[in-house]
Amino acid sequence: MKQVIIIGYGPAGISAAIYLKRAGVEPLVIGKDFGALEGYSDLIENYYGFSKPIEGKKLIQEGIDQAKRLGIEIIQDAVISLKIDDIGFLVVTSKHRYHAKSVLLSTGKTRTTLNIPGFNKFRGKGISMCATCDGYFYRKKKLAIVGCGAYMLHELEYLNRISQDVTIFTHGNQLNADIEQKIISDPIVSFKGNEKVTHIETTQGMYEVDGVFIALGVPSSVDFASQLGVIVEKNNLVVDEDYQTNVEGLFAAGDIIGGKLQIAKAVYDGMEAADSIYQYLKNK
Amino acid sequence: MKQVIIIGYGPAGISAAIYLKRAGVEPLVIGKDFGALEGYSDLIENYYGFSKPIEGKKLIQEGIDQAKRLGIEIIQDAVISLKIDDIGFLVVTSKHRYHAKSVLLSTGKTRTTLNIPGFNKFRGKGISMCATCDGYFYRKKKLAIVGCGAYMLHELEYLNRISQDVTIFTHGNQLNADIEQKIISDPIVSFKGNEKVTHIETTQGMYEVDGVFIALGVPSSVDFASQLGVIVEKNNLVVDEDYQTNVEGLFAAGDIIGGKLQIAKAVYDGMEAADSIYQYLKNK
Repeated sequence: MKQVIIIGYGPAGISAAIYLKRAGVEPLVIGKDFGALEGYSDLIENYYGFSKPIEGKKLIQEGIDQAKRLGIEIIQDAVISLKIDDIGFLVVTSKHRYHAKSVLLSTGKTRTTLNIPGFNKFRGKGISMCATCDGYFYRKKKLAIVGCGAYMLHELEYLNRISQDVTIFTHGNQLNADIEQKIISDPIVSFKGNEKVTHIETTQGMYEVDGVFIALGVPSSVDFASQLGVIVEKNNLVVDEDYQTNVEGLFAAGDIIGGKLQIAKAVYDGMEAADSIYQYLKNK
Repeated sequence: MKQVIIIGYGPAGISAAIYLKRAGVEPLVIGKDFGALEGYSDLIENYYGFSKPIEGKKLIQEGIDQAKRLGIEIIQDAVISLKIDDIGFLVVTSKHRYHAKSVLLSTGKTRTTLNIPGFNKFRGKGISMCATCDGYFYRKKKLAIVGCGAYMLHELEYLNRISQDVTIFTHGNQLNADIEQKIISDPIVSFKGNEKVTHIETTQGMYEVDGVFIALGVPSSVDFASQLGVIVEKNNLVVDEDYQTNVEGLFAAGDIIGGKLQIAKAVYDGMEAADSIYQYLKNK
């Protein structure tokens, strides 16, 4: 049982980890990629303290190394789902399962999106980003899951209980699982429909669907948070002045809570959230 | 006429300068020393982005170099007074005078103090840190100014109008001015009195006084701000959510406004204050 699991090892997550460690709490930090700064082609010039501009990727690595040097446990893994069970928060990654008394979401704002015609049009109209959130509305319907890895399997596990008619669309990706469902591996070229999505068109054919669940890559923090009933406004997680969401013990910091998408703000958020998490654990 | 003068080149001041420059405003930054981080003997480990601990002094220098590289004007000079005249804010340094439409105070919290018996006891009881603030109460009284440089001269100029009986105590320092007042150069050993201060005791003698004005070194931001009538609570400048003091156009950020005395907070403050100053100048 961890005291706190921090999901995301960018500026907000690492800043929080450093302050928590200093306060005597041992955080576990789980990160998977370098978020918004990963492909940041410009050099960073506006974050205080660097006489020479620094690459986004380099800054993230500096932060990770800084935390490791202070003895903070950091693992590189993709979080597949976040749940609450009898023990506490259950964080499921592609490799492990962890329990924690509290969780900080600080993954930044990278959002799963699909550059396929019809995706934006039918998102929320038959296309869902979250089986746990929307699966209920598709009982015994003809369902599709777009995905190929652990995230897809997670969504499949849930949707299997809802419907016997689930097809997996790998969208040209290699399937990393042994499953009994029907599998379409051709790339998807468009989502078709009228008011709602009715068909998936691939390079090889046209498939009828009632609901499509996107599970490519890994879910975003907004996806996790939605699963737990966190209030989301304009794609930002809503937090109170203590950086706590409406779910007790679930905190969020950095770009994911909105405001200025700046490193200085993420670092500040992390520091403040650490303080709140410390108080939360102390009072618990 | 400058758009904005930033007093202090620590994390808050430089962060503000960088964001203002980015927004198309040309700030002038005036700093005199390295503030709270100057003599910071420990290495800084909790400010995000540095895999190896960094010395306070080195971080300040990095920040100054960062700003200079971005073309920001920075001068090293001591600010002696801050006033408002017909033109705008008047910033007087030991070498020059500058006018500005707005001012950001970000000097940190180093506070003039005196390690002399009786100083704390009689502070506010005959011992004042600000001639402009308290001089009025000492009309035609026997006054002492403790100081030796430009700051002392600034206070003397004001107190000369109040009283003809002003003595300068250099407290063992060399006098850097040619003045007609009586000068006592022996080190002060104590301030004496009952309810209020009544005497200054030096290594050589005892001198009767009604009021003592401390003008050693350079005034702190709290001193400037007091001169302008800024609300101060618990030695913090009070600002609104836009980092503006109760004096229009006068902003403050960093340690001087209280809260966590952390670099992450100062940097964040600077960024946010820059935004407010930009809006202020735009609407003016």
